[in-house]
Amino acid sequence: MNQVSCGTSRIVGVRFAVYPMSDQFADIIKSALKQVDTSKVWMQTDDITTCVRGRSEHVFDVAEAVFVQAAKNGTHTVFNGTFSIGCPGDSEGDTYMSEDGVRLNKEASSQTEVEASTHFALYPMNNPDYMQVIADQVETAKEHSTFTKGVHYASRLDGSANDVFGTLEEIFVDTAQSSSHGHVTMTATVSANSPSQKDNKRND
Amino acid sequence: MNQVSCGTSRIVGVRFAVYPMSDQFADIIKSALKQVDTSKVWMQTDDITTCVRGRSEHVFDVAEAVFVQAAKNGTHTVFNGTFSIGCPGDSEGDTYMSEDGVRLNKEASSQTEVEASTHFALYPMNNPDYMQVIADQVETAKEHSTFTKGVHYASRLDGSANDVFGTLEEIFVDTAQSSSHGHVTMTATVSANSPSQKDNKRND
Ligand SMILES: [Ca+2]
Repeated sequence: MNQVSCGTSRIVGVRFAVYPMSDQFADIIKSALKQVDTSKVWMQTDDITTCVRGRSEHVFDVAEAVFVQAAKNGTHTVFNGTFSIGCPGDSEGDTYMSEDGVRLNKEASSQTEVEASTHFALYPMNNPDYMQVIADQVETAKEHSTFTKGVHYASRLDGSANDVFGTLEEIFVDTAQSSSHGHVTMTATVSANSPSQKDNKRND
Repeated sequence: MNQVSCGTSRIVGVRFAVYPMSDQFADIIKSALKQVDTSKVWMQTDDITTCVRGRSEHVFDVAEAVFVQAAKNGTHTVFNGTFSIGCPGDSEGDTYMSEDGVRLNKEASSQTEVEASTHFALYPMNNPDYMQVIADQVETAKEHSTFTKGVHYASRLDGSANDVFGTLEEIFVDTAQSSSHGHVTMTATVSANSPSQKDNKRND
């Protein structure tokens, strides 16, 4: 991949992995993937992460679905990924941009109850006003019931996996739209079923 | 935390978690932490991630040590973190900047053999030349034996945990220095003992 040239397509991507903290981690991941319809996204997995690319709604739909299906049986499970738009580096996956907007996994994900907690961070690249962009999105997050507080280098959300991924998607898509042709990335660590006490007391 | 104001201190931080894919994950993490000397860094853990801040050498020293101690017994273990400099948002942990440079965990980490594979991505903020900065650092990585190839949104390194974290540190510190007062972040997903076949064939 040529890391210097940015593409012009507005394809969205996420490079992520899901970590079930279990001796059965491989089976849990395989079983989760079987329950997720990935036909509207370009997808490639190696031994470290999985990369999913396509329209933003399908990228978020698949990311949420893999996490929810892996976490639904109660195992402590973490989704860790970086969403990206504006610098695909090449045109692989561009055909997936012509898919329609109907989400293939939304219904199954919504019907699966998983409580999630996340730390996310937004990185609008090459933007002198990026700190203001981030502050604006924190305000957007606060309009959702999911926003809990800021922590060093990140913000915290708590809620159903459905609401948490919904907030992440809105923040990412809003930022991408306000940055027109810009390169925006967002990291998210989404955790379910942690045995540790939730640090979800709001600051305000 | 006020997300809009950047501090002036050059304190380095990492927000990370280590994921042992095992029923014994909590014990593995607790036992790993007991074997890591964290006295030269500010450290705070919640139910999602751990934040470590201080001089860059100690931040990388502690990050590598926690990963190595958690992975050394062969469990598939992943370190996932975002390193950051230039936007602490507040001055918490600044007293740790006066520690000397002697690494407290280097010897133990070096003596522990863990093979690691990583995807990393560098984000120099508010820098119109950021794609060139990234390209330069990929060249730096190529001077190390660890560099394998670029993938969508990231670059891949393979080698001993010691060499992989060494490469990550050099890339991050070089970028931070070349960005004088700038804000730079770097994500890294470092994996050990994966049962999946390594996709570590070089492209060149
Ligand atoms: Ca490619």
